[in-house]
Amino acid sequence: MNTIINDIEVLKAKTTKINEVDFDNLKFGSVFSDHMLECNFKNGKWQAPKVVPYGPITLDPSAKIFHYGQSIFEGMKAYKDAEENVWLFRPLDNFKRLNISAKRLAIPELPESYFMDGLKALLEVDKDWIPKKDGSSLYIRPFVFASGNGFHASPATEYKFIIATAPSGSYFSGEVKVLIEEKYSRSANGGVGYAKAGGNYAGQFYPTQLAIEKGYQQVIWTDDNTHEYIEEAGAMNIFVRINDTLITGPTSDRILDGITRKSIIELAKSEGIAVDVRKITVTEVVEAAKNGTLKEMFGAGTAAVISPISGFGYKDQDYTLPKLDDTFASYLKKRITDIQTNKAEDPFGWRFKVE
Amino acid sequence: MNTIINDIEVLKAKTTKINEVDFDNLKFGSVFSDHMLECNFKNGKWQAPKVVPYGPITLDPSAKIFHYGQSIFEGMKAYKDAEENVWLFRPLDNFKRLNISAKRLAIPELPESYFMDGLKALLEVDKDWIPKKDGSSLYIRPFVFASGNGFHASPATEYKFIIATAPSGSYFSGEVKVLIEEKYSRSANGGVGYAKAGGNYAGQFYPTQLAIEKGYQQVIWTDDNTHEYIEEAGAMNIFVRINDTLITGPTSDRILDGITRKSIIELAKSEGIAVDVRKITVTEVVEAAKNGTLKEMFGAGTAAVISPISGFGYKDQDYTLPKLDDTFASYLKKRITDIQTNKAEDPFGWRFKVE
Repeated sequence: MNTIINDIEVLKAKTTKINEVDFDNLKFGSVFSDHMLECNFKNGKWQAPKVVPYGPITLDPSAKIFHYGQSIFEGMKAYKDAEENVWLFRPLDNFKRLNISAKRLAIPELPESYFMDGLKALLEVDKDWIPKKDGSSLYIRPFVFASGNGFHASPATEYKFIIATAPSGSYFSGEVKVLIEEKYSRSANGGVGYAKAGGNYAGQFYPTQLAIEKGYQQVIWTDDNTHEYIEEAGAMNIFVRINDTLITGPTSDRILDGITRKSIIELAKSEGIAVDVRKITVTEVVEAAKNGTLKEMFGAGTAAVISPISGFGYKDQDYTLPKLDDTFASYLKKRITDIQTNKAEDPFGWRFKVE
Repeated sequence: MNTIINDIEVLKAKTTKINEVDFDNLKFGSVFSDHMLECNFKNGKWQAPKVVPYGPITLDPSAKIFHYGQSIFEGMKAYKDAEENVWLFRPLDNFKRLNISAKRLAIPELPESYFMDGLKALLEVDKDWIPKKDGSSLYIRPFVFASGNGFHASPATEYKFIIATAPSGSYFSGEVKVLIEEKYSRSANGGVGYAKAGGNYAGQFYPTQLAIEKGYQQVIWTDDNTHEYIEEAGAMNIFVRINDTLITGPTSDRILDGITRKSIIELAKSEGIAVDVRKITVTEVVEAAKNGTLKEMFGAGTAAVISPISGFGYKDQDYTLPKLDDTFASYLKKRITDIQTNKAEDPFGWRFKVE
C-alpha cells in the first residue's frame, strides 16, 4: 500500500516485527524498525527518497563501497515524551555535517528537504518504535555509500542514502577505563578525521582491541605527530576537568565537530562553568592526575551522550580519577537529556518537534 | 553442476557472458568474468571457499561495511603466454599483504590455502577470460569486508572474502601530470596508510578532484606534518630519477609496501642502475627540475605497472620533465612485463605458473 507523507512516497511493510521486541531490555543498535528511508543517486542527481520496508541491499561485487571505502554516516536520536510528542536534537546540524562529510569523501551532497522530510516521514511511519523508557531512544542512522560499480580507484557515479532506525538502550555500560595512545592514531592533518567517514572507525578497531587486551575499554587518541595532544576518546569527543574548568580540544581537520560536544560547551558556559576550548597535552593531564587537580574526564557523543571515564593508562602507569559525588558529567548529562526528552525548558532552541 | 578443483567446490554458471566482451577494446576493471571465489567468516572461523557464479551480494542495511569501513583488498594480474600457460606475479606477496592489512583493520586473517587454492580453482574455471593481447591481462581483485550487522562501532563478527576478476586493458592512458599536495594527505603516522584499506582510497578522491580541476591527473602525496616529503603518487608508489639514480621513499606505516615497487628496486639494482631508498624532499625535486638533473618521475603499482609522469605542479608553478628517448620507466616496464608474461627469463623466481 503506497501513501504519501510530507511529499515522501511510503511503501508500507506487510507485517510488523514490533511484537518480537523487548522494549524493556534493548541493546544498542541491534534491533531495527520496520521501515527505512531510501534515496538513490544516479544520472547525476539524487532521486526522490521513499520510505520502504527495512530490508536487504543488493550490490554487485564490484560496488565501490567494498573496495574504496566511500561511505559516511550520522548518528541521531528520536525521543518520545509523556504526551507522545516526538523530538529530535539539532537535526539540521546532523544534516549539515553529513554534507561536510560528503564533500570530503567526494560523495554528492544531499538536498536538505530529502533529508529532513524523509526523516520526518520515516518517524511518522515508525513512531511506535520510539521507546519511552528513560535512557532509551530511537537511534537514527543516516548513511551514504558508493553503490556504483568498477575496479577503478575513482569516485562512484551511483550512491545510496539510507536512514535506518533502531530502538536502543544505553551505549556503554559499566566503568570506562581508557588508554592514552602512544603509537597508533586515527587521523592525519589534511585527512578525513573531521568527517564521519567509515574508514575512520575501521582504523580504530585494532588499537582498541590491543587496549582491551590490556584491560582498558577505550583508546584516547592523540595527534599522529607527537602523541602529546589529546584529541578524541574512542569514537567520541573528549572533555577533561581540571579543578573546576572543563577543557576540550578545538575542532580541526583531525577532530570531529561533535554536536554533543558543542552543546556541552554552550550549556556549561550558560550554567557558569568555566570552559576552555584549547589543546590539551598528555603531560598536563598526567600532572593533574598526580597533584589531584584532575577531577573528571568524559567522552561526549550522540550514542552515549556523556560517558564518564574512571581512569587512564599511560606509559605502563595507571591513574585513577576521584569518585566525586557531584560531577559535571552527570549534571550536564541530565541537563542535556532533559532538554532532549522535553523534561526541561530549552533556552537554546535545540529541540526539534517532529510533526 | 558442482565439481571439485584443487579441493575447492565449484558451482558453475549456467551461461557465459564471454561472447559479449570485446577483448580487443578492454577498459580497466569494468567487465567481470563468469565466476568469483566466495568465502565466509562466521562462528569464529573462515568457512571453506567456493567458486560460484559472479553475482550480486545481499546485505542487511546494518552490515558494518556500510558504516565503519572495515574493508581491505589486493590487486593482482594473470597473464596467458603463447602456449596458453597462465601466470601470476608474486601471488604469495599479495596473500601476505592481505593478511597484514587484515590485522590492522581487525579483520580475521585468511588461511593461505583458501587464498591460493581458491584463486587457482577460479582461474582454471575462468581461464578463457584471460586476455592474450599485449598490455592486457586478467585483473584479479581479492577483497574482504565486514558483512556482520549492527550499529555499534566495533569489529564485525562476520566477513566475506571474495576474489573477482576482470579482463582489462591498461589502467592509465595519455600523459600524467601530477600536483604535489600541500594541504591534504592520505595517511597518518600510526594510521592505516600501509594497509590496502578501502578508506585510504576514498580519502584521496576529493583532493584528486581538486587537482583534476586544476589540470592535473593525479596527486603526489606528501607527509601530513610538513608536506615536505614525497610519499606516494595517487594510488601508486613513486620513483624519482635524479641524474642516473632512481630514488623511492622507504616503506613506513604511511606508505604501502608495493610489490611492483620492490620488484623495480630489485630489478633496477640487478641491471646496474643506482637505487636509493630514502626520503625524498619536495625541495630537492623542485631544485632538480630547475637545474635539469630531474630526468624522470613515475608511479609504480600492479594496475598500471609503471606510469610515467610528464610534469608536476607545486606552489602554483608548473615543472615539465624532459622527453627522453630512453627512459628507466619504459626499460623497467618492459623488463617486468616480459617477466610477468613469460617472454623473458625470470632470475628472481617471481613468476608463478598456475596449474
